[in-house]
Amino acid sequence: MPDVRIVLVGPKFEGNVGAIARLMANFDFDDLCLVNPCEIGDEAYRRAKHGSHILAKARIFRNLEDAVDGCFLVAGTSGTITKGPTNYGRIPISPEKFAESVREYGEKIALVLGREDIGLYQEELDRCDVFVNIPSSETYPTLNLSHAGGILMYELFGKIHITPSPEPADIREKELMFGFFDDLLDAVDYPEVRRERTSLMFRKMMGRSIPTKYEYNTIMGVFGDAVKGLRAGRERE
Amino acid sequence: MPDVRIVLVGPKFEGNVGAIARLMANFDFDDLCLVNPCEIGDEAYRRAKHGSHILAKARIFRNLEDAVDGCFLVAGTSGTITKGPTNYGRIPISPEKFAESVREYGEKIALVLGREDIGLYQEELDRCDVFVNIPSSETYPTLNLSHAGGILMYELFGKIHITPSPEPADIREKELMFGFFDDLLDAVDYPEVRRERTSLMFRKMMGRSIPTKYEYNTIMGVFGDAVKGLRAGRERE
Repeated sequence: MPDVRIVLVGPKFEGNVGAIARLMANFDFDDLCLVNPCEIGDEAYRRAKHGSHILAKARIFRNLEDAVDGCFLVAGTSGTITKGPTNYGRIPISPEKFAESVREYGEKIALVLGREDIGLYQEELDRCDVFVNIPSSETYPTLNLSHAGGILMYELFGKIHITPSPEPADIREKELMFGFFDDLLDAVDYPEVRRERTSLMFRKMMGRSIPTKYEYNTIMGVFGDAVKGLRAGRERE
Repeated sequence: MPDVRIVLVGPKFEGNVGAIARLMANFDFDDLCLVNPCEIGDEAYRRAKHGSHILAKARIFRNLEDAVDGCFLVAGTSGTITKGPTNYGRIPISPEKFAESVREYGEKIALVLGREDIGLYQEELDRCDVFVNIPSSETYPTLNLSHAGGILMYELFGKIHITPSPEPADIREKELMFGFFDDLLDAVDYPEVRRERTSLMFRKMMGRSIPTKYEYNTIMGVFGDAVKGLRAGRERE
């Protein structure tokens, strides 16, 4: 069962922050982090109702990076879906799929919700491992921040309260595996200009797949052997 | 595909009514009925945003009976679940189950949401054919009216439509990519006994990740280069 942190980036209306705190109490979450929020006053507490203790202990950060520190998986959300297939950072999964795939995690995961008007900036989206999108109307897809948060928490709550199983990868294995992929790009002399982009694409793909410890280790083994073989071959030249 | 009417019974806060109108626009519903509502003023319109046309044409009734007239199925909602099985009116189904079971209806169905504080009266619940309950915290199960409505509409919308996604890889590209992975296992002299198992594991991981055409091609390129490099190195031995 994952330990879920809710991260609001740049919320502009305190009422929304309060509503999120109430929803967190409704769905048994209690770790709220705010990045550069508006002022949190009476209106926020009025809307938080029996979730006001969550609001009171919310932590405030100056950037997303610090707010998701130590999180194994960072899930970003936004009302905007990119149509082109090359913008790999924005290929969305549904809240249902997301909740299903994280329910076996034992680690901390962050659910990041963007600003009411413009959502998350590109560099914030880039920090996210997976991108969750709520299916909605084509003519008016933009949900209110707290309603989007409520739907995501509802899905997480519903899926968490069902059977756990295989051991998920820990954060160290994950980074090691990505390191091996980068080594592989290096060993095949992958074009420098496309390297960062391809590395990021691979992260996002793996983010959506949510591998177990065993899977990470196995793939790491294959990549590691390939890198070793390539470098040995190079030395023989 | 059912024709859904949203019925709010005795809403006390116009902000909630406005938020419901916005959510209806978000999820392509437009038939809103209000039973003895509070006054609907600026705050409601402010919250309705691009759903204000739905608010403007909402119909007002003096009792639930009239508001659900002509509906084939009337679904009631409330945060309260009765434990005993004899109170048949309150044995709940989940929003997901509800949405699944009505998605093939061609008739009008009503989704009835009760008052913010005390929900629906017994005689109103008795008028409902089915009772939908949102699974939530045992310590604080009571969701805000509009958040409850949002979750129910989300489930109905999701079961009626399907998430759009970027162009998926076709089966040929997929098989090609798996072929390259197998070549990679071969090129690194991967232990014969584990080869089939690892190949299958990789397929499953990719299956969960649902890569696009672009992603398959990119990964295929990396693996292909690795295989080529490894084989060239081998020849130099």
